[in-house]
Amino acid sequence: MSGIKAVFFDIDNTLYNTGRLAEASRRNAIKAMIEAGLMVGEEEGYRKLLEIVRKKGPNFDHHYDVLVKEYSGEKKHQIIAAGIVAYHTTKLGYLVPYPETIPVLLKLKQTGIKLGIISNGVPTKQWEKLIRLGLQHFFDYVIISEDKMQKPDPRIFRGAVVRAGCRPEETMMVGDDIMNDISGANKAGMNTVLVARGETKKPRRKADEPDYLIKDLRGLLGILNI
Amino acid sequence: MSGIKAVFFDIDNTLYNTGRLAEASRRNAIKAMIEAGLMVGEEEGYRKLLEIVRKKGPNFDHHYDVLVKEYSGEKKHQIIAAGIVAYHTTKLGYLVPYPETIPVLLKLKQTGIKLGIISNGVPTKQWEKLIRLGLQHFFDYVIISEDKMQKPDPRIFRGAVVRAGCRPEETMMVGDDIMNDISGANKAGMNTVLVARGETKKPRRKADEPDYLIKDLRGLLGILNI
Repeated sequence: MSGIKAVFFDIDNTLYNTGRLAEASRRNAIKAMIEAGLMVGEEEGYRKLLEIVRKKGPNFDHHYDVLVKEYSGEKKHQIIAAGIVAYHTTKLGYLVPYPETIPVLLKLKQTGIKLGIISNGVPTKQWEKLIRLGLQHFFDYVIISEDKMQKPDPRIFRGAVVRAGCRPEETMMVGDDIMNDISGANKAGMNTVLVARGETKKPRRKADEPDYLIKDLRGLLGILNI
Repeated sequence: MSGIKAVFFDIDNTLYNTGRLAEASRRNAIKAMIEAGLMVGEEEGYRKLLEIVRKKGPNFDHHYDVLVKEYSGEKKHQIIAAGIVAYHTTKLGYLVPYPETIPVLLKLKQTGIKLGIISNGVPTKQWEKLIRLGLQHFFDYVIISEDKMQKPDPRIFRGAVVRAGCRPEETMMVGDDIMNDISGANKAGMNTVLVARGETKKPRRKADEPDYLIKDLRGLLGILNI
């Protein structure tokens, strides 16, 4: 297809592997906490941590405090700090784009297509990721939801189309999440591309089906004939 | 002198150079925020940041939000995130002990003297520093104030002496701050050592005078005849 003037991307699991980052960082945090005296096995500790993250949400600041409270009375600040240091040290090593991310973004840039971000999350945290990924200069429009209006609300996508000065059919939304990235963008009349790196979750409703399905970002080059 | 069985240390500006760390990290944060679009000169931005840190306290989590609000309307999350990333990246490079810290601690260890920490601050944050400094395994007693009881309250020093199973005159407190480290430890009957690396602030009252004054931690070896 041609005539696309602006391509918008989700960040997490679209531009970099946040699943791998989270698992490696959390597992190393558990190991460090056990070395610092936490009385729990690695697997049980990891499962308990995931449970706490699910319960409290990913942006809660004290997952390790809650975890350590479960298993340990003594030395708790030392154990919490060991977990925090291991988590952040590991995270920095995994905050890298997918191997194809930068080559594909450069190729899109070369053809004059405008690039944007449409992301849910805490704005400063999402910007931190873009900066650490080295991607902060690639995007002409960065739209990060505040609490009030989040993906999949179609208004966030409509706003993005307006900001790019385009008609919806001249734009494309690329993401890994059927509900957040595809459903709302479909409603806004954008072209939609689902990146399904692993197993593909099937959309339940026809309205949530993406226009295109790709295995990784290189698939965009085929869709756009570049 | 001899007969010392336990030596307690302050952390910040005693075991590592927190002044240098803070200045370098904050200056790099300001530079990064200017590069990301903050409309202020480097010196003015730095002075304003120091003012905000003084006003809000060092453990307030949103110094950069306040700073950016002063100078910038647009792109503010991007600018705040640029500052945070630069601050933390710089900080990691400066979180190293003074060159003499580990050699002196090892020497004390070899003579069988017990080592401890008596520090004000958020316990998890102080532990994070010890871990990143690589010092977490050196200390037999780590006492970090909760809000209720802080240096220079003599009770925190008396508690440390009890935990070490010593009489006060068998213990020593080493720190850079006359009020926080020397005054209270004097009251608890400990031997006191002021580390005065730069200019020496004179104690105002006789009760705040340290028993010993050293230029850096190597001075301890002379005092203890080791």
